[in-house]
Amino acid sequence: MTSHLGCELCEQIESPAWVLVHREADLRVIRVLDAPEFPAFYRVIWNEHVAELSDLSEPQRARCMAAVVAVERVLRDALQPTKINLAALGNMVPHLHWHVIARFDWDAHFPQPIWGPRQRTPEPSAAERLARDWAALDIQVQQAVATALATLSNGQPS
Amino acid sequence: MTSHLGCELCEQIESPAWVLVHREADLRVIRVLDAPEFPAFYRVIWNEHVAELSDLSEPQRARCMAAVVAVERVLRDALQPTKINLAALGNMVPHLHWHVIARFDWDAHFPQPIWGPRQRTPEPSAAERLARDWAALDIQVQQAVATALATLSNGQPS
Repeated sequence: MTSHLGCELCEQIESPAWVLVHREADLRVIRVLDAPEFPAFYRVIWNEHVAELSDLSEPQRARCMAAVVAVERVLRDALQPTKINLAALGNMVPHLHWHVIARFDWDAHFPQPIWGPRQRTPEPSAAERLARDWAALDIQVQQAVATALATLSNGQPS
Repeated sequence: MTSHLGCELCEQIESPAWVLVHREADLRVIRVLDAPEFPAFYRVIWNEHVAELSDLSEPQRARCMAAVVAVERVLRDALQPTKINLAALGNMVPHLHWHVIARFDWDAHFPQPIWGPRQRTPEPSAAERLARDWAALDIQVQQAVATALATLSNGQPS
């Protein structure tokens, strides 16, 4: 595996800024803790230091996107969000990672991207509205991703 | 195909806001004209009115992402951008479409997402720095997407 000196996604597996939800050889999934207005915010991080989706082989890309879709499905089922936002930007950290964010029409930035202008300060807060056992949701995400990838390894469509 | 009344992506195939670059049964590719600070900005639009990537079957998803990656590869080869940004948001128009944007460290919003706070006004402008025969680039994108999808139809990895 290619690791890149000074890349925080190569060097940091554990951090107070996230919960490590799932980890396997080629990718890992975290739940983001440092964006409190968006509590249903996961990231799928490709473990190897590559910058772009097109740096992956087709089977790698299929695994990466299967993980993204597995996270998305759990968020849709559990939270019925207004929309899921997916993004692979990496302008700050050019190491392939996907943001998977459940968005709600009442959230602080909707319908703008979370990086866009603030629209409102929700009252009650996102944490209050979405209050739940996040560790239990993490387990659902973990199981969904593991199952999706195991199925894919067997050559079956997810 | 499910079309949705009032959805601009269902109703508008041609527009002065974009160039239609490629079109086939399940998806189309446009080049965005109404974001002049980001001239290398394409969209892959799934033709059927579905909201989320997880609404696609696995073979459909593979085709959608193969098109995204084909666009990305052409932009990387032709423009050597600092980074490619990929995003499926759809908060405004909940019809599955992927933004594929070549980003440059000198562009108006880098390293912020294009939806984030402006960082500078490039001088010379993006249009001047990236000046080229855009119709020729569109043909490269068209051919790359068509080839990627034709290859996928044959069961070969792209």
